[in-house]
Amino acid sequence: MPVNLPAPNPSELYPIAGVRIGVVQAGIRKAQRKDLTVVLLDAGASVSGVFTQNRFCAAPVQVCRDHLNSGQDIRAMVINTGNANAGTGQDGLARARRTCSSLADMLKLEPQQVLPFSTGVIMETLPVERIEAGLPAALANAQEDHWLEAAQGIMTTDTAPKAFGAQVQIDGVTVSVTGISKGAGMIRPNMATMLGFMATDACVSQSVMHELALVLAEGSFNRVTVDGDTSTNDSFVVIASNKAAHATIESLDSPQGRALTAAMLGVARQLAQAIVRDGEGATKFITLQVEGGKTSEECRLVAYSIAHSPLVKTAFFASDPNLGRILAAVGYAGIADLDQSLIDLYLDDVHVAVQGGRHPAYREEDGQRVMKQSEITVRVCLGRGQAQDTVWTCDLSHEYVSINADYRS
Amino acid sequence: MPVNLPAPNPSELYPIAGVRIGVVQAGIRKAQRKDLTVVLLDAGASVSGVFTQNRFCAAPVQVCRDHLNSGQDIRAMVINTGNANAGTGQDGLARARRTCSSLADMLKLEPQQVLPFSTGVIMETLPVERIEAGLPAALANAQEDHWLEAAQGIMTTDTAPKAFGAQVQIDGVTVSVTGISKGAGMIRPNMATMLGFMATDACVSQSVMHELALVLAEGSFNRVTVDGDTSTNDSFVVIASNKAAHATIESLDSPQGRALTAAMLGVARQLAQAIVRDGEGATKFITLQVEGGKTSEECRLVAYSIAHSPLVKTAFFASDPNLGRILAAVGYAGIADLDQSLIDLYLDDVHVAVQGGRHPAYREEDGQRVMKQSEITVRVCLGRGQAQDTVWTCDLSHEYVSINADYRS
Repeated sequence: MPVNLPAPNPSELYPIAGVRIGVVQAGIRKAQRKDLTVVLLDAGASVSGVFTQNRFCAAPVQVCRDHLNSGQDIRAMVINTGNANAGTGQDGLARARRTCSSLADMLKLEPQQVLPFSTGVIMETLPVERIEAGLPAALANAQEDHWLEAAQGIMTTDTAPKAFGAQVQIDGVTVSVTGISKGAGMIRPNMATMLGFMATDACVSQSVMHELALVLAEGSFNRVTVDGDTSTNDSFVVIASNKAAHATIESLDSPQGRALTAAMLGVARQLAQAIVRDGEGATKFITLQVEGGKTSEECRLVAYSIAHSPLVKTAFFASDPNLGRILAAVGYAGIADLDQSLIDLYLDDVHVAVQGGRHPAYREEDGQRVMKQSEITVRVCLGRGQAQDTVWTCDLSHEYVSINADYRS
Repeated sequence: MPVNLPAPNPSELYPIAGVRIGVVQAGIRKAQRKDLTVVLLDAGASVSGVFTQNRFCAAPVQVCRDHLNSGQDIRAMVINTGNANAGTGQDGLARARRTCSSLADMLKLEPQQVLPFSTGVIMETLPVERIEAGLPAALANAQEDHWLEAAQGIMTTDTAPKAFGAQVQIDGVTVSVTGISKGAGMIRPNMATMLGFMATDACVSQSVMHELALVLAEGSFNRVTVDGDTSTNDSFVVIASNKAAHATIESLDSPQGRALTAAMLGVARQLAQAIVRDGEGATKFITLQVEGGKTSEECRLVAYSIAHSPLVKTAFFASDPNLGRILAAVGYAGIADLDQSLIDLYLDDVHVAVQGGRHPAYREEDGQRVMKQSEITVRVCLGRGQAQDTVWTCDLSHEYVSINADYRS
C-alpha cells in the first residue's frame, strides 16, 4: 500500500497540444498487461533528457544519448516494460536501435528521431519482435488525452500509476504541464529516475531545454531514494511542444522562465515523491532535512547516509524511536572534520539531541508519537554553516524483502 | 541461525600468559546476563588498538584513543554490553572516564592505564554505578583460561560466541594467539569492528604494535559488512604479553614478524568472518572477489557496492539468480571511466556475464544451483588492471527486518 499517494486526478492531467500517446498490450513478458507505450510529438517540439549515471547503463539509455546528441528533431518515443535491455552487451544495443528503426519506418522518420526506453528485468534479451508487432496498434491508439493510460503502461512493481499536472500563466496565456513517472525499487536516481516524462505546451527554446531538465531533475528525482540502488535505466525526459501562444522562453532566468520552472518543478516533485510513496514495501514517507552544512553537497551526503541506513529504515518501520541510529549514520556520512558536539536532531517538532547528546527534555513518548505517523520529518543541524538540502525516502519493511525475493518468480 | 559458524573449540582457545579475564553479571540493561568483562594485563605488555572512523564515535572510543596516546603502560580493559555510551555528549565522556578511574583505584593504577569499551543501545545514559558495583566480582573471577567466557560476555544481538586461536613457532618457541569478537548488526567496520580483541604471548616491540593492529584490521575486520552501518563503537585491540621465550620482534618484515602476522591474520579473519556468519538474519555467507581493477581501492568500492545493495542481498536470500542486479551495483559503484563491455561475472564456477552481457552458454539452472548454496563466491573481473580485493558479506532476510524492528523493545 503506497503512503498517502494521491490517485491521478483526470481533470488535472492536461492534454498537451502536439503530444499524442498510444498504449497497448504487447505480451513482452506477461500477458494481459499494458506494456508498450508510444509518444508522438508534432514537429517543432523542444526535447531534452537526463539519464542514469550508472556505468552499466542500459542499451536504450545509450541510444537515447546518441539520438539526442544527433541534433535531429525528436518526433517519437517508445517505452516497454517487462525487460530493461540492460547488461545485454552489443546485442542489446542492436535491439534498441532496431526498435527505433522499426518505429521510424512506420512514421517515415529517421531512426535518430526516435528515443527508446525499457524497464524491467536486467540481463535478459529484449524481445524486439513483440515490440514491432505491437507498434501498429499503439500508433492507432495515439491520443492527446492518454496520459493516465501511459502512467499505467509504464508500471512494473509500482502498485499505482503516478501522474500529475499543473497550469500556469505565461504572458497571460494559460500553459499546461503534465508528467508521469514509474518506479518503486532500484531507486536512487542519479540524474533522473526510471522513468519520468513531462510535457508542456509552453514555448521553450531548445537552447535552454537541457538546463530546464537538469533543474527539474536536481530538485525532484535526484532527491529521492528507496533502496540506494541506482538503476541502469533511469531516464527523465522533458518536452515542450511549443504550441502555446506566447513568446518563446529563451532564458530560465526571465519572469516567464521562472514561472514555468516553478510550475514544472512542482509537478516533478510530486512525481518523484510518488515513487517514494509507492516505494517497495513502504509504510512511511520520510523527509530528511539537513541544515547548517558548509555546502549543500555535504548536507546531501548526510541525508543519503541516513536514508540508506538499513538500521534507520527498519526503526522507522517499527515506529521505534531508536534515534541513536540516526546519529550513527550522520557520523559515518563522510564529513571528515564533523564535530559531533555541534549537532542537533529533531523529529518533527521534537528536539531529540542537542550538542551531540540526548536532549535533557527529550522523552521517549514524544519520539514514539512522531515515529507512529505515516509522514515524518527528520531535521539534522550540523552547526557548520548556512547550506541545507532535503532528501525524501521511505522505511524498510518485511514487504520490501518479500517483493524483492519474489520479483522474478 | 548463523551460517556455518564454527563453535569455539576450547582446546584451541589458548590461555595467553600475562592476560587474565573476569566476566560477571552486572545487570547493566537486563538481568541474568553476563554483561561486564575485565581484562587484566601483566606489566610489560605491548598494546595497540584501531577504532571506528564514525565521526559520532562513542565516549569510550574517545577515552581509549586518549589513554593509548598517553604513553602509559596499558594494564586493564573494561567492557560492558547493554549500553554503547554513544551519542551521550560530555556526560558520556565523564562516565567513561569514571569507569576507568574506579577500576584504576581498585588495581592501584593510573586511569590512563585502563581502556573502556561499551556496546549496546546508542543515546542512553551509561549506568556507571552498576559497572562499579560489578567490578570487584569481575576482578575476583579473573583467570587466564576465561576466553570463552569473555566471548560470551561481550555478545549483544550475536546468537553465538566468536573465539578462535592458533599457535605458531617463533625461533623454535611455540607462541599462542587467541582472539574474540562480537557483532551481528551495524557492521561495516571502518578501522575495526565492534568489538575485537586478540592477544598473543609473543614478544612484539611496542614500536611495531600499531602497524600490526592496522595490518590485521585491514585484512580482516575492514573487509566485512552486514548492513553497511559503520558503528559508533568499533574497537579492535591487539595485545602482545611478551611472555614467550624468544627475542622481541622489532619488525613485521622479519621472518619472525611475518610468521606471527600470518598466524594472527588467520585468527583475525576467522573472527571477522564469524561476525558475517552471525550477521543479523543471515542465511548465506558471500565472498565478493573483485579482480582486474586499476587499484585495490576501486576493487573494494565495487565489492562494497554489491555488498550493500538491498536488491542483491534480497536476491541471495531468495536464491534467485537475478544477477543483473549485481551488474547494476558494479555500474553505480563510482568508477567514472568504467567500461561495461570489459566486465565478466562469475558465480562460483559459473560464467554468467561476458563483455558486459549475458554469457551465451549461461543457463539459469546453473546460476540457481550456486545461489542455493550457503557459501557463494561472486567474482567480478573489471578488465582494467591487475589489482584485486575481497569483501565478505551476507544476505538480507525477513529475519534482519524482524531483529532490527524489535531490537529495543
